[in-house]
Amino acid sequence: MRPFTFFERLSKAFHDYPSLSKILIVSTISGGGLIVYSEANASYSNNGVETETRKKKVVLLGTGWAGASFLKTLNNSSYEVQVISPRNYFAFTPLLPSVTCGTVEARSVVEPIRNIGRKNVEMSFLEAECFKIDPRTQSNTFNIPGVEENCHFLKEVEDAQRIRSTVIDSFEKASLPGLNEEERKRMLHFVVVGGGPTGVEFASELHDFVNEDLVKLYPKAKNLVQITLLEAADHILTMFDKRITEFAEEKFTRDGIDVKLGSMVVKVNDKEISAKTKGGEFSTIPYGMIVWSTGIGTRPVIKDFMKQIGQGNRHALATDEWLRVEGCDNIYALGDCATINQRKVMEDIAAIFKKADKENSGTLTMNEFQEVMSDICDRYPQVQLYLKSKGMHGITDLLKEAQAENGSNKSVELDIEELKSALCQVDSQVKLLPATGQVAAQQGTYLAKCFDRMDVCEKNPEGPIRIRGEGRHRFRPFRYRHLGQFAPLGGEQTAAQLPGDWVSIGHSSQWLWYSVYASKQVSWRTRVLVVSDWMRRFIFGRDSSRI
Amino acid sequence: MRPFTFFERLSKAFHDYPSLSKILIVSTISGGGLIVYSEANASYSNNGVETETRKKKVVLLGTGWAGASFLKTLNNSSYEVQVISPRNYFAFTPLLPSVTCGTVEARSVVEPIRNIGRKNVEMSFLEAECFKIDPRTQSNTFNIPGVEENCHFLKEVEDAQRIRSTVIDSFEKASLPGLNEEERKRMLHFVVVGGGPTGVEFASELHDFVNEDLVKLYPKAKNLVQITLLEAADHILTMFDKRITEFAEEKFTRDGIDVKLGSMVVKVNDKEISAKTKGGEFSTIPYGMIVWSTGIGTRPVIKDFMKQIGQGNRHALATDEWLRVEGCDNIYALGDCATINQRKVMEDIAAIFKKADKENSGTLTMNEFQEVMSDICDRYPQVQLYLKSKGMHGITDLLKEAQAENGSNKSVELDIEELKSALCQVDSQVKLLPATGQVAAQQGTYLAKCFDRMDVCEKNPEGPIRIRGEGRHRFRPFRYRHLGQFAPLGGEQTAAQLPGDWVSIGHSSQWLWYSVYASKQVSWRTRVLVVSDWMRRFIFGRDSSRI
Repeated sequence: MRPFTFFERLSKAFHDYPSLSKILIVSTISGGGLIVYSEANASYSNNGVETETRKKKVVLLGTGWAGASFLKTLNNSSYEVQVISPRNYFAFTPLLPSVTCGTVEARSVVEPIRNIGRKNVEMSFLEAECFKIDPRTQSNTFNIPGVEENCHFLKEVEDAQRIRSTVIDSFEKASLPGLNEEERKRMLHFVVVGGGPTGVEFASELHDFVNEDLVKLYPKAKNLVQITLLEAADHILTMFDKRITEFAEEKFTRDGIDVKLGSMVVKVNDKEISAKTKGGEFSTIPYGMIVWSTGIGTRPVIKDFMKQIGQGNRHALATDEWLRVEGCDNIYALGDCATINQRKVMEDIAAIFKKADKENSGTLTMNEFQEVMSDICDRYPQVQLYLKSKGMHGITDLLKEAQAENGSNKSVELDIEELKSALCQVDSQVKLLPATGQVAAQQGTYLAKCFDRMDVCEKNPEGPIRIRGEGRHRFRPFRYRHLGQFAPLGGEQTAAQLPGDWVSIGHSSQWLWYSVYASKQVSWRTRVLVVSDWMRRFIFGRDSSRI
Repeated sequence: MRPFTFFERLSKAFHDYPSLSKILIVSTISGGGLIVYSEANASYSNNGVETETRKKKVVLLGTGWAGASFLKTLNNSSYEVQVISPRNYFAFTPLLPSVTCGTVEARSVVEPIRNIGRKNVEMSFLEAECFKIDPRTQSNTFNIPGVEENCHFLKEVEDAQRIRSTVIDSFEKASLPGLNEEERKRMLHFVVVGGGPTGVEFASELHDFVNEDLVKLYPKAKNLVQITLLEAADHILTMFDKRITEFAEEKFTRDGIDVKLGSMVVKVNDKEISAKTKGGEFSTIPYGMIVWSTGIGTRPVIKDFMKQIGQGNRHALATDEWLRVEGCDNIYALGDCATINQRKVMEDIAAIFKKADKENSGTLTMNEFQEVMSDICDRYPQVQLYLKSKGMHGITDLLKEAQAENGSNKSVELDIEELKSALCQVDSQVKLLPATGQVAAQQGTYLAKCFDRMDVCEKNPEGPIRIRGEGRHRFRPFRYRHLGQFAPLGGEQTAAQLPGDWVSIGHSSQWLWYSVYASKQVSWRTRVLVVSDWMRRFIFGRDSSRI
């Protein structure tokens, strides 16, 4: 069967549901972009009679973190969800580095997407092969020559399986007769590019696999294996606390993993990788296998869509704070295919002033301001971040400070220029959300909850006041709550950074890691499988059969 | 790296061990042919001094049933085993049909070959990619056009994995919009060719997978799925007792599996399979997927070797009763690449007579004959099979019967013509061993035990008298002991046929099947995994993620 192209599928879906009027986009970490359209209008059946019971249609593209948590949360029988994805399963991506070395089996981290939705929401699934076209371009190769052809990526379950068999294969090849020591060393030289959590976790998993399991079966290989980690920045794990970075770098050095900081890859061929240090020094190293782990590129299907809607010069779809794609009605985008374009306070400052100045007096009293304050904080989360960074307790502190600076400390009212000067620094706190599964999952849950309460909130909007319009927004904007992050470092040691800058490194956080990852599994089946895989690994070690 | 060819590898192995003087071949069910050479001569080190401690080299080709049981049994530190195989693991092939539907995971039925050998036997392993060239030609396609291109086979772990994802894929494809009912039906029409144990087990696994798990996720597909089993003979499972065959055919009919007996496949194209009934009637059926399961072809590497040693017109390597390849010193062949050429009594009748007639009198007394009787029964197992089939207790009964027939019933001595007429029917009992894992495993164990006692038996031979030579054979010839056979029929029902024609069908033999297959696992790791896979299936069902 000829695979459908993306747009063929889309038009097919339209054809099957001719009364569709609303569209949403969702995208997920390592899951492919996805579009959701929903039909909210009452539609007409063949005989022209209005059928009120017709369900609202939602089309969801992709089955990654955002899509899966959307499906898991959506709990309103008035929707009918059509899922389109190249994969009929959700993959628990944080365990992919474990899959590369067989600590956890591939099948233990996947769950059929048909099992994830709730019973009372009608769901159907279409497998769209089009997404598979050139999956390699998903990773961000910075157009460095030779990367796409010679490197492994680590985004999908298949990548992890391929890496696993390539690692075993390297050991088998290096055991063949008729090779000199140099060739064997080259084959057993594993290079990891990128010192983010995924690259670091892969390097430490590989180190454990080699030292705990493979050396027993390939005793001669022990002194030939080398793991090198190349990082362009000055440190690995830069998104973590400095203590974690230092601990990780020291542990890797102790473990014999060669961490080359400030090393930018410039070229890769089939046997050698060339890097440049910050000082401009070039070096070329022979390698056996490279795993490329430096952030996420844009999927072709999202690129195409971005061109269509005039966002062609961006890296990801721009959405508003409610995850709606800018310029598109009823298209929502989530996860790593999208970035939220947080509205700036200074762009809206005149409208804010006008909204707050109910009496239209040209000046704001503190009372007037306090009335809209919570709405402003809801609408512009950067305000609170800024207050927090300054150690202030409320927005009035900020206004008072601004008045003091302007020398008008006696006044209890402020004009628009004073408001501007008070808030001029606030927008510096606007931050892009990281492209992690945690963000995508929270977005999926948020959107599903909005959909669930769509009718209720249409009547009783619960969002902040519309600054440039009348009434209120239906929903509160999406707000990300960072729950912490783990960096497994091998040897049963994990670094954990929890909210409030609580840092923990060692065996205790490894156990925290085990329990968090077990509890986050989407189904009891995968939970049992993952835990039994860990137990199996403790008892029998990792399997090294090349299948 | 360019893959080595088989002969390059062989000459490399020779080059690495220049003092090799003995060679063996072994082959294994679904495991590729294998050669073992052993060096029994004392060799000279560089300085010309004889080094008596030099180990005897054995080269073993293949890591299937024969090879694995050879490695598992060999327990003599004077050997050094070099294993060459395309796979670095042993696969428990009887569970492959379970792998096709995810009842058991692929990784649960494999064990790295490096883990299988005993600690005191030095072992090394070479991965020989050459075996992978056109693996499809392993299956016996009878040169029917289109079979190789369009059918799935079920010999290797990879085949089982491919079948699994193709089954899921068929369901996904049949769920796509824009197809008519006929096309959906075609996609969900699964055809199994061959009614042997593997084909029957796959059909029943697939039936259970569809009816227990897939219908929940693809409710619309239930009425579209069809499983058809084509068998050229008049019944399925012909190697089993008639009661089992009947039960299986009835159960399949009840289950809605369409069993077409007496149907010979004549042609396959990418969408249709054509078959001919015995009456000459042609029929062409559209299909979605075909699994071809009709016995074993010869691997190209064995074919090449057979041509070299002048056995080019055979289907398998001919060996003697000690598993030595005919015409080759120190090459042994085991498993499905070989057949034992049992020596016929009538070919040796003159030598037997001469050997027994110690006094060279031209006639044999009963006493003389009884002295060599046990040796003859050892050397020619067909004698005992013949006696059993005739209900006789000893060879003397046979001789007496022959004398009675010849009218010389008073004589207590017999001449060569009388001996000939007594034994003339005996060779009809020579039977080929089936190409099963059970035979291969017993051959591997037998050969390893011979190797273990090589030195002892060289001095004190324990085999039968050499009929056409002096002294005794070193070892007793290989003798196969049939331990019974299972045929899982789905729905927790298994047919079992144990020695003594003990037949059992139903849930009790399913539990027997579970316990036998669990106990036969080569390692505790795979045992735990297989049992936990079964438990997981009971609790959560089979996984339908397409990975």
